[in-house]
Amino acid sequence: MPIDLSKALGAETPPMEYECNQNKLILYALGVGVSTDPDDLKFVYENPPGLVALPSFGVVPAFPALMSMFGVEGLELNPVMIVHGEQYLEIHKQLPISGKLFTGSKVLNIYDKGKIALIELESETKDESGELIYRNVFGIIARGEGGFGGDKGPAPGNEPPERKPDKVVEMPTLKQQALLYALSGDINPLHRDPNFAAMAGYDRPILHGLCTFGFACRAVLKEYCGNDPEKFKSVKVRFSRHVFPGETLVTEMWKEDGKVIFQVKTKERGEVAVSNAAAEVLE
Amino acid sequence: MPIDLSKALGAETPPMEYECNQNKLILYALGVGVSTDPDDLKFVYENPPGLVALPSFGVVPAFPALMSMFGVEGLELNPVMIVHGEQYLEIHKQLPISGKLFTGSKVLNIYDKGKIALIELESETKDESGELIYRNVFGIIARGEGGFGGDKGPAPGNEPPERKPDKVVEMPTLKQQALLYALSGDINPLHRDPNFAAMAGYDRPILHGLCTFGFACRAVLKEYCGNDPEKFKSVKVRFSRHVFPGETLVTEMWKEDGKVIFQVKTKERGEVAVSNAAAEVLE
Repeated sequence: MPIDLSKALGAETPPMEYECNQNKLILYALGVGVSTDPDDLKFVYENPPGLVALPSFGVVPAFPALMSMFGVEGLELNPVMIVHGEQYLEIHKQLPISGKLFTGSKVLNIYDKGKIALIELESETKDESGELIYRNVFGIIARGEGGFGGDKGPAPGNEPPERKPDKVVEMPTLKQQALLYALSGDINPLHRDPNFAAMAGYDRPILHGLCTFGFACRAVLKEYCGNDPEKFKSVKVRFSRHVFPGETLVTEMWKEDGKVIFQVKTKERGEVAVSNAAAEVLE
Repeated sequence: MPIDLSKALGAETPPMEYECNQNKLILYALGVGVSTDPDDLKFVYENPPGLVALPSFGVVPAFPALMSMFGVEGLELNPVMIVHGEQYLEIHKQLPISGKLFTGSKVLNIYDKGKIALIELESETKDESGELIYRNVFGIIARGEGGFGGDKGPAPGNEPPERKPDKVVEMPTLKQQALLYALSGDINPLHRDPNFAAMAGYDRPILHGLCTFGFACRAVLKEYCGNDPEKFKSVKVRFSRHVFPGETLVTEMWKEDGKVIFQVKTKERGEVAVSNAAAEVLE
């Protein structure tokens, strides 16, 4: 099998550079649904009082580093069999609007989930002075790569309580949302090319999991952080089902055990697209 | 007055560089309303059969050159008093998807329209080999600068015939359309900042004239060029009234005198936003 634990586990790649600028922050914000709400102007407008990065932007500078991991020895996977399964993001410091960022990454864990393998790739994004800005763990599902007798890994946790959600936010996505989100760096054809999507078994291109993630983080930010990114500390999600661009995302939230448990459903089909999710926020 | 004809007329600026790449073409296409119509995939997707530039993209590489004209001697204008009045674009050659473009510009005409002056700035955009790709004439209105006893200039022409339009295309704009279009280079706060828009006398930020222009050119391209940019040769428009982001643009078209006469109305308010407009196309 293409995964060789003895070689892959702990493998590292050298830091990769990402040049940040205000247009990239604005483009990302539009990619995850920011529109003309006056309270959101700071995410899409560079003039005073000044541009601010959305917390979930933290996955973007790490993306090139993530991609480079698929070349490491012992981890030569078939791209067609790969799906984004989980995401964890910690925000250590507010992002400088412009300047170079450097992201190093390593293979943190490889779990055996039966038919699939869950590969956890950890990345740390630092600024030019070496200060840690973001830590990500990308949970990548490799279909057909499980069953090697390895550790199953921990249960996902963050199950919603029985009661009705404390808060619910609905956000429409655009039909062209994936076309727009792709400009932030994830150019997988699955999200834009109808023929490719058909080959992968979908009626039409599906939305990026991390695009849905961005919408959900905005919902938490609005409801539990007063829309202030400095209060948003970390977030963890599982991507359960796909979303089609143009569907409306319903983010259900509960304040529980000192964190915000949430899930995202598609309004049109009632599918849970994001589950086992929680954000740590400052009150 | 800040316009000194003897100095300004014929003044030139050195060529300014614009670096073209596929993401800029895609971003522009999304900025002028391209969505998931399969026939439009070539404007927003870089994989084979390959990306193609929308004809109206031709105004984008000239934009930095246009901005630089406001520094030439005899043309020190108050930016707050400036409005985009007219636009002419000729396409001489299909754009290379990536590479450097160079645009030189000069003050072509300054007409006295009574209270206002109409300043025509001509620009030529060439590729690295020096071949002409685009020729633009930006018609800039300087409010309060007319009445200097100058030439009135020609009548705008391109009046629609009396009969009903031969073709009508409706295209919705997004509430966030101006935020998105601004990323192609026109960062005038009038189109994004509610406070600035209020100072300029508008209820809310207005759409870029050249954004509406992009939608209208797409309508002509679809109806008279089989959506093939190689058949679109030139276009001339007058910006008559503002459009608010979120409004639906109704482009009415007539085939007349060997060209496509058109105008654009806002569906919601019935205002003619683009008038005296015509495109030259190959059958």
